[in-house]
Amino acid sequence: LNDGMIVQVRERLSTMPPCDVALLLESSRSRTRSEIWQLIEPDQYSDVLEDLSEDVRNGIIRQMVPEILADALEDMDTDDLVETLSGLPEAVSQDALSSMDEQDRQRAEQALSYGEDTAGFIMNTDTITLRPEVTVDVILRYLRLKGNIPKGTDTFYVVNRSDELIGSVPVTELLTARPAVKVEKLMTQDSVAVPVDMHENEVASLFERYDWLSAPVVDKENRLVGRITIDDVVDIIREGAEHSMMSMAGLDDEEDTFAPVIKSTKKRSVWLGVNLLTALMAAAVSDMFEATLSQLAVLAILNTIVPSMGGAAGNQTLTLVIRGMALGHVSGSNARWLIGKELAIGFFNGVIWAVLIASVIAMWKQDVMLGGVIAFAMMVNMVAAGLAGAMLPVLMKKMNIDPALAGSVILTTITDVVGIFAFLGTATWLLL
Amino acid sequence: LNDGMIVQVRERLSTMPPCDVALLLESSRSRTRSEIWQLIEPDQYSDVLEDLSEDVRNGIIRQMVPEILADALEDMDTDDLVETLSGLPEAVSQDALSSMDEQDRQRAEQALSYGEDTAGFIMNTDTITLRPEVTVDVILRYLRLKGNIPKGTDTFYVVNRSDELIGSVPVTELLTARPAVKVEKLMTQDSVAVPVDMHENEVASLFERYDWLSAPVVDKENRLVGRITIDDVVDIIREGAEHSMMSMAGLDDEEDTFAPVIKSTKKRSVWLGVNLLTALMAAAVSDMFEATLSQLAVLAILNTIVPSMGGAAGNQTLTLVIRGMALGHVSGSNARWLIGKELAIGFFNGVIWAVLIASVIAMWKQDVMLGGVIAFAMMVNMVAAGLAGAMLPVLMKKMNIDPALAGSVILTTITDVVGIFAFLGTATWLLL
Repeated sequence: LNDGMIVQVRERLSTMPPCDVALLLESSRSRTRSEIWQLIEPDQYSDVLEDLSEDVRNGIIRQMVPEILADALEDMDTDDLVETLSGLPEAVSQDALSSMDEQDRQRAEQALSYGEDTAGFIMNTDTITLRPEVTVDVILRYLRLKGNIPKGTDTFYVVNRSDELIGSVPVTELLTARPAVKVEKLMTQDSVAVPVDMHENEVASLFERYDWLSAPVVDKENRLVGRITIDDVVDIIREGAEHSMMSMAGLDDEEDTFAPVIKSTKKRSVWLGVNLLTALMAAAVSDMFEATLSQLAVLAILNTIVPSMGGAAGNQTLTLVIRGMALGHVSGSNARWLIGKELAIGFFNGVIWAVLIASVIAMWKQDVMLGGVIAFAMMVNMVAAGLAGAMLPVLMKKMNIDPALAGSVILTTITDVVGIFAFLGTATWLLL
Repeated sequence: LNDGMIVQVRERLSTMPPCDVALLLESSRSRTRSEIWQLIEPDQYSDVLEDLSEDVRNGIIRQMVPEILADALEDMDTDDLVETLSGLPEAVSQDALSSMDEQDRQRAEQALSYGEDTAGFIMNTDTITLRPEVTVDVILRYLRLKGNIPKGTDTFYVVNRSDELIGSVPVTELLTARPAVKVEKLMTQDSVAVPVDMHENEVASLFERYDWLSAPVVDKENRLVGRITIDDVVDIIREGAEHSMMSMAGLDDEEDTFAPVIKSTKKRSVWLGVNLLTALMAAAVSDMFEATLSQLAVLAILNTIVPSMGGAAGNQTLTLVIRGMALGHVSGSNARWLIGKELAIGFFNGVIWAVLIASVIAMWKQDVMLGGVIAFAMMVNMVAAGLAGAMLPVLMKKMNIDPALAGSVILTTITDVVGIFAFLGTATWLLL
């Protein structure tokens, strides 16, 4: 970037919507990112920061002066504010909090106190409330005076004198109601409220199931404390669905595609370390059959086929069960049936692929007995794969381990060990 | 289920919200599903069908009489109607269409003509439009007369005499505006409209980026033809994110967790067949080194370690790039930089894990030379894995192949072949 271009870029950036600036930052490597950031107008900081993913945002915040950061944070809605603060290292977020003015600090500390990933964490506090005894006419006059209604408001909530939630009125209802009607006649009383300590994933599945655009949030005494809007829930839904895919490859959900090489290498090394242990374990099993392998080199050549097929089949079952659990389709009551089903599929898969591989090997290596051995190993491993793929996520969930993160490693270890044992064991017994 | 229980279940079902009935059906195996379906009131059919996934819905529809199906379809919103019809086999959907009444059939055929996965396919046609010269007061009186506003309406669209979209007015704006103000003073003119033939994934990323709750849909002449609401987009966002995970395990997105065993076995067999070919290809590479393997059984034992590590590292890169492309972060301009980055990570990974595995093997097998051979193979394969993981999705996208579906198979084939070649080839050269 030369000086003439800088002016142009600065101009372009100031007219772009904040979400597009955020996308540009996300798609740049880290050096370009800092350069672009310096060209953004300070009054855009808060909107752009809101739209960034955690890794990228923290990288930028680390280069900001606490006072400027505090200014940007004060301009944010409560939900974005706490999300940003909670992703920061303790020291940085404390610095930022203490640079903020009294009122905003209290607002942030209150929301932070609900605990991460709860409804209280993702809610906004700019809710418009109505009283049951007021008429539509009065409300319309009040709203005209007030002049603006917070973004994403599709429903007004009705509270009594103790701030307890007693009903709700859709915005569109106010447009069609006669002016003299009282709110208590208009309101729906059986609307569902979200408890402030509900987990965000549960909130997201409620939104998805009931097609909500927003929902009221209440504390233990049923007092209205805020509202959650669909735009925040959309992020949770997408992140939830992505989480499984990223975890199954040993990646962090928030992993920044354009992070520096060293940082990415470090982040991914844990997973590769675990994989090395798995591979060494498989090698150790083969090692037990060294005598057999040294007599029949053909076994060494075919040794990977059975574990590989078991891994692929088991992984299909695992993925399906993990998704079923995420969608709420798989629970205690039907888990047993599902395990039975996957066991049956494993059996059928075993029969099909055993016959196929036996024919291929018998022809390729001109050895019917060898074909029989690999067929038997395939059968055993396919059944093991189906069983492991279905049982692992159910068991892990009971033990509070994330099946998406650890499931595939454990599954592969099982299908490797069972596959090698079955193949080399049977071969030792029958072919020597 | 005995007779007494049937009455109870029927009662329970009739008071449950349709989305909960749908969840119950999704979580049941196919026999229970038909039993439950028979207990649902016919006037709930359309709402329940809407909320089911394609596989489950088609299973139920196959058991319905065309006339009853047509009745249920007629009660649906346009977007749900076309989604249901397009998922059905041609013969069944033709039967259903011809049993529907004239008006609904036309509505369905019009929407179906836009082509699957387009904005026209997911839009609704129940849009309320305003004229620019009308005052707020007149609109309020009109709405009170009309009595109800379609679900999910957060914005009214302003059209001129030729039905061309010229602006939009948020519902909340009507509440705060003075009665005498004209629509043309209130409306935003630069609101973005979705072309009717835009792909649904593009629509979804616009919604996500700009936090829209709804968007107007226009034809080529900029005439308003409908609107898309966030509840339909939420499904697309979730399915899009899930699609990659399911495809990477060779599963269909709509795969029903509780389908009968035979059906599931059939659906998954293509993937396992492809995997068998991959495994046989790896075996064929090992086969070229049969002489080496028969002289040194230790090579057979260690032969799986290098391919396995390459597969794990390559899969991390592949997953990250596929997600980056789905989020719109990775495109032509930064793809080259990203490939360079992943190559560098592959190099560093190679160095780290080569040193580690060399030490382990040198100690385990008391053979420094063997450690050196496996270290070299690891280096080569890690670099290949990084390169393949980053380049494959970029290349496949250019060739219009879905990288999530085919990427991981091709990647594994590459890391298997390169890994075995590097390991056994170097061993043949140096150790014999």
